[in-house]
Amino acid sequence: VLRFGGHLALGTVGEVGERAIIERIRARLAPPPPWVALGVGDDAAVLRAERNRAEVLTSDALVEGVHFDRAYVPAASIGHKALAVNLSDLAAMGAEPRAALLSLVLPAALPVGDLDAMVGGLLALAAIYGVALVGGNVARSPGPLMIDVTATGVVKPRRVLTRAGARPGDDVYVSGQVGAAAAGLRLCRDDDSTWRPALAGRDDDDDENHCVRRFLDPEPRVRLGQLLAKSGVVTACIDLSDGLADAVQQVAAASRVGAIIEAAEIPVPDAARRVLAGQGSGAASPEDSWLRAAITGGEDYELLFTSPPRRRRTLMASLRHAQGVACTKIGRITRDRRLVLRRGEGGDEALPAGFAHFR
Amino acid sequence: VLRFGGHLALGTVGEVGERAIIERIRARLAPPPPWVALGVGDDAAVLRAERNRAEVLTSDALVEGVHFDRAYVPAASIGHKALAVNLSDLAAMGAEPRAALLSLVLPAALPVGDLDAMVGGLLALAAIYGVALVGGNVARSPGPLMIDVTATGVVKPRRVLTRAGARPGDDVYVSGQVGAAAAGLRLCRDDDSTWRPALAGRDDDDDENHCVRRFLDPEPRVRLGQLLAKSGVVTACIDLSDGLADAVQQVAAASRVGAIIEAAEIPVPDAARRVLAGQGSGAASPEDSWLRAAITGGEDYELLFTSPPRRRRTLMASLRHAQGVACTKIGRITRDRRLVLRRGEGGDEALPAGFAHFR
Repeated sequence: VLRFGGHLALGTVGEVGERAIIERIRARLAPPPPWVALGVGDDAAVLRAERNRAEVLTSDALVEGVHFDRAYVPAASIGHKALAVNLSDLAAMGAEPRAALLSLVLPAALPVGDLDAMVGGLLALAAIYGVALVGGNVARSPGPLMIDVTATGVVKPRRVLTRAGARPGDDVYVSGQVGAAAAGLRLCRDDDSTWRPALAGRDDDDDENHCVRRFLDPEPRVRLGQLLAKSGVVTACIDLSDGLADAVQQVAAASRVGAIIEAAEIPVPDAARRVLAGQGSGAASPEDSWLRAAITGGEDYELLFTSPPRRRRTLMASLRHAQGVACTKIGRITRDRRLVLRRGEGGDEALPAGFAHFR
Repeated sequence: VLRFGGHLALGTVGEVGERAIIERIRARLAPPPPWVALGVGDDAAVLRAERNRAEVLTSDALVEGVHFDRAYVPAASIGHKALAVNLSDLAAMGAEPRAALLSLVLPAALPVGDLDAMVGGLLALAAIYGVALVGGNVARSPGPLMIDVTATGVVKPRRVLTRAGARPGDDVYVSGQVGAAAAGLRLCRDDDSTWRPALAGRDDDDDENHCVRRFLDPEPRVRLGQLLAKSGVVTACIDLSDGLADAVQQVAAASRVGAIIEAAEIPVPDAARRVLAGQGSGAASPEDSWLRAAITGGEDYELLFTSPPRRRRTLMASLRHAQGVACTKIGRITRDRRLVLRRGEGGDEALPAGFAHFR
């Protein structure tokens, strides 16, 4: 175990044990913000309440072999993503994130260096949004690595964004780009060695590297979600964890409406088109295949939201503070409950179903 | 799959899929209390804040093959226990439980009937304490079944019980009985068929059945924890999730004190003594072995707490409302930081170390 120094010298999590793992995580925590009355180390965490704020709560687990493969997802990205998916859920409610609990179920053979990298990825993202890690637990896994994060946030009660408020005539918007994560997954799965260098660079070019980064280290739209809530003109909001097609379906079902989505307006980056061409299932043509893959592939962690056209000026004024996150109008809500994908000359077709676990 | 009707006719969770699983759980939920602004079904849950209350948060995971064995732990008990361990943590802080998030990671082959029983066990306990299940997530496991629960509660900020307030001279108390769960685990592990009938009966006799029930369906000391917090005379509190010896160590470390625990005062039921005799590791005698096993075995989910002797009358007045949960004085806190197990004629010895995961 002491052969090479560095990671190997640290041994495995099974060798150091539960207490040492917790101490290791605790030692890396930033000083807690003033509203944390009691953080890691007691039976539970205690947070001071904020006046006139509702509490928003979500949890989501990442499971090795289901949500990620350690062969091509670096440990730091596992930690990043485990928090990002939860912050994305808070963003979809318009909430300001506050605290997180981390539940780790670890194979005994996991190198301590990987644990450190995983926790490092999570804490780096937490620092960006001022999220305090206030508790959690560590257990041994007889099988896959699992990381389950609970995130809490606050929002003014009247500002909460839900899936249920879309009304006929509302415009449908999506933030950022769609399909990049699905393309990134494909690139990683097909050839891990080729895309590893992508992790080093951090440019925002529309290339394959960009897709890989979007898949590995998604940016939750935390500030955008809060802007949308504050604007007062957003009627429904959801994140794209299970893909754009699924998001439209969820909003439509919760709001008891339908939607027409304009295929040509969906912001799929060129690199993702190239990667996804020829990969969609049930595709009639190459153009069709990348579009299907882009809107049914999950993990983009963008926001889909609706707003009445007459409030567009107010919405645009709010979005000016979105720090470079573009939002694109991709369709509109209808009274007719059908979900339509409209292709200029190709005519209308049914919006495909989203990604489903267990299937 | 339709051969026998009943459970088999329901198929497996892999066959019904994620959405149907969530709908199945949602259909069983009681109407949410008024402070749940938004429950299951959106990106996150929204809870209305209570005035002048701090928020208490905890999460704990149960992993198949580590925390339970499906060969002898019925599905309903897995669900019960997953919530109970978290309510026990809230109880140790003196908090009133409010809401829970349920993160399920399920093997595709799990029968839907087992899922129903697991959720049923959790919801039955939730109903007793008015806990609302407000969210969570479901994922597929390529290995063991995992159930991770996050529980939140509220407490008056000045009433929070922590591990850190014990002072030299304080009395040390433990609620209920110690070692019954360790004995129950032993009984289940040695012969599942013999103890299955215990699940049917619900008497409180001090017999082997009682030990099995304490292991399978522990009662979190939710009301006792709130009484202790309200009393204003409890200086430190912790639950016995990792055993009495570990609890004493945690309180002593957090409070920077020591303790003398009187072996003869530890309330180990007779049935547990019989079962645990001859099983303790490093035991010098049969009497020694059951005591060691009882105080180092975890899962009793009782509360250990400290209080100054001069406030004993106030404490006893509070405990009169503890609805039949006895509390026993088992020792006292010392300035000397050693942790001593005192045996009348046997003299003093070091308190053994508690249960540690990964070891």
